[in-house]
Amino acid sequence: MTETRISSEKKEVILGFDRPFVVIGERINPTGRKLLAEEMARGDYSRVVAEALAQVANGAVMLDVNAGIPLADEPRILAECVKLVQDTVDVPLAIDSSIVAALEAGLAAYRGRALVNSVTGEEERLEQVLPLVRKYRAAVVAISNDETGISPDPDVRFAVAKKIVERAADYGIGREDIVVDPLVMPVGAVNDAGRQLMRLLRRLKEELKVNTTCGASNFTFGLPNRRGLGTAFLPMMIGAGLTSAIMNPNHAEDMQAVFGANVVMGADPNCAAWIRRYREPTSPDAEGGRGRREGRRRNRD
Amino acid sequence: MTETRISSEKKEVILGFDRPFVVIGERINPTGRKLLAEEMARGDYSRVVAEALAQVANGAVMLDVNAGIPLADEPRILAECVKLVQDTVDVPLAIDSSIVAALEAGLAAYRGRALVNSVTGEEERLEQVLPLVRKYRAAVVAISNDETGISPDPDVRFAVAKKIVERAADYGIGREDIVVDPLVMPVGAVNDAGRQLMRLLRRLKEELKVNTTCGASNFTFGLPNRRGLGTAFLPMMIGAGLTSAIMNPNHAEDMQAVFGANVVMGADPNCAAWIRRYREPTSPDAEGGRGRREGRRRNRD
Repeated sequence: MTETRISSEKKEVILGFDRPFVVIGERINPTGRKLLAEEMARGDYSRVVAEALAQVANGAVMLDVNAGIPLADEPRILAECVKLVQDTVDVPLAIDSSIVAALEAGLAAYRGRALVNSVTGEEERLEQVLPLVRKYRAAVVAISNDETGISPDPDVRFAVAKKIVERAADYGIGREDIVVDPLVMPVGAVNDAGRQLMRLLRRLKEELKVNTTCGASNFTFGLPNRRGLGTAFLPMMIGAGLTSAIMNPNHAEDMQAVFGANVVMGADPNCAAWIRRYREPTSPDAEGGRGRREGRRRNRD
Repeated sequence: MTETRISSEKKEVILGFDRPFVVIGERINPTGRKLLAEEMARGDYSRVVAEALAQVANGAVMLDVNAGIPLADEPRILAECVKLVQDTVDVPLAIDSSIVAALEAGLAAYRGRALVNSVTGEEERLEQVLPLVRKYRAAVVAISNDETGISPDPDVRFAVAKKIVERAADYGIGREDIVVDPLVMPVGAVNDAGRQLMRLLRRLKEELKVNTTCGASNFTFGLPNRRGLGTAFLPMMIGAGLTSAIMNPNHAEDMQAVFGANVVMGADPNCAAWIRRYREPTSPDAEGGRGRREGRRRNRD
C-alpha cells in the first residue's frame, strides 16, 4: 500500500489507505480574511499562533500554512510563519503558495519533510515546482487541472493526475510522494458530482495507487445546511479512498464525521480514539471497554 | 439494475441502486417496550397510530409493523395493526414476525404488495416462508444466517444469502424480490466490522445483484456517542451499496445523514429534497436555485 510520509522534527504523519484519515488544518490562510491579512502584512503573527494552537487542540495532525497577501513580501512572510508555527506546535506542515519563490522560502525555513501545496498539470508549474520538491525531498499536492483549466470530465482529471505522476517520476519523485487533489465540483450545479468523485477516488487508489486530498467545502456550495451535507459527504469519500483533507478542524461535527469514518474503516484500533474522544464519565464505558478487549482477542484470530 | 417494488393501495416504493435510500420506520414494535406491549395486548392501538403518523411525518417512506408480544394472539394483533396502520397512513409496510401464522395473517389483511420480514437460510424457515411470499406476490427480507447461526465470516454470510436467492428461485421468486440483510457486527467487538460490511455490500450489489437492508444500531453497540458514530456509518454503507434500512426516522441526525447521502449518490435530482428539507427563508437560496437550474442544464450534456 502506498504511504506518504510527512514529518516535522518530532512527528511523522503517514497518509495511507489503512491509516487514520489525515486532517490538515486550513485556518492559517489570509485569503478572504482582511484582518488576518493586514496583521500578517505588518508582521503581527499573534493570530497565526492562536490558529495553530486551536487547530492542533481540535485534532488536526498537520497544518497548512499560506501567506498569500496581495502586494506583500510573500516569500519572507511565509518563511517567518513556517518557522513560527514550527516553534509553536510540533505537527508537520503543508507549505501553501501559488508563488514558486514563496514555496522555496518556506521549504528553506522548514525543519523536516514538508508537503508542498501545490503543483498542477500546467507545464510551467511542473517545471518550476517539481525540482523544488526533489531538492527538499518533500511530498507534493498534485491538483488535477492543466492549461485547459478544470475539466468537468472525471476521466480527464484522472489523466491529468496520471501525467503529473509520470512527470514527477522523471524528476526522481515517486508516486508515494504525490498527493492528488481530484477537484470537487459543487453538487448544486453538477448533480452527479458525488458519484463521479467516488469513482475517481477509487481509480486513484486502485489504478494510480496514490494518496489523495481535497477541499471539501466546494461540494456543498450554494446549498442550505452545508455543514450537515458535509458530514455525510466526508465519510462517503473516505469510504471511497480519500486519505486526507485540507479542512477546518474547529468544527466539531466535521471532526466527528472523520473520527467516525476511521472507526468504520477499521483505522481506529479497538475504537480507542473514538472512546477517548467521546466517552462520558456517566456513560456505560465498561461496555466499550469489554468491546475493546474482546476486539483485541478477536483480531488475533 | 435490480429494483424491488413494494406498494400500498396508493403508493409504490422502489428499492434500487440509483434510487433514493429507503427508510423503513422501526417504531411499531413492542419488543422491549413494556407499555406498548401491554396496550397492544389489550387492543389499545392509540400508540401504534401515533407512531405511524410521526414516522411518516419525519420522512419514513415505509413502516415495519411487528406485534411480537409473549403469550398474546400475535396473528390477530398483527392483522389488526396492519389494517389500522393502512387506514392511518398510505405508505407501504413491512410485515414483521418470527411466527409464520402471524406473517400469513398480516399478509391476508394487507392491501398492496408487502415486504415480508423475514426469512433466514434455515431450511424450516425457507420451506414455511417462501411459499407465503409467493402466494401473496410479496417481497422478502433475507437474513444471512442459517442453522449454524450467524457466521463472523462475511464470505459465509454471502454464501447464505446466495443460497436463499437460489431457493427463492425454486419457488418462482426472483432476486428482485429478495432484500438481503447481511447482518451488522458491533465494531466495538469486531474492529474490522465496518470494512467487512462495505465489502459484503459491494458483493451483494455486483455479484448477487440484490437490494439490501440492515438494522444499523448493532454496529455502535457498547460505544459512547452512538448516534454520532451512526451518522458516519450510514452514509458510508449507502456509498457501498446499501439501499434501505429499518431505522428510527424520528432522529433528525440520522435522517440528515440519509438525505445527505442521497445528494452525494446523485439520487436527489437537483438536490430538490435536500433544499426543501433544509432551506431557511433567510438563507441564500437564490444560489441553491441557480444551482438547481444549472444542474438541470449540465445534466443534459
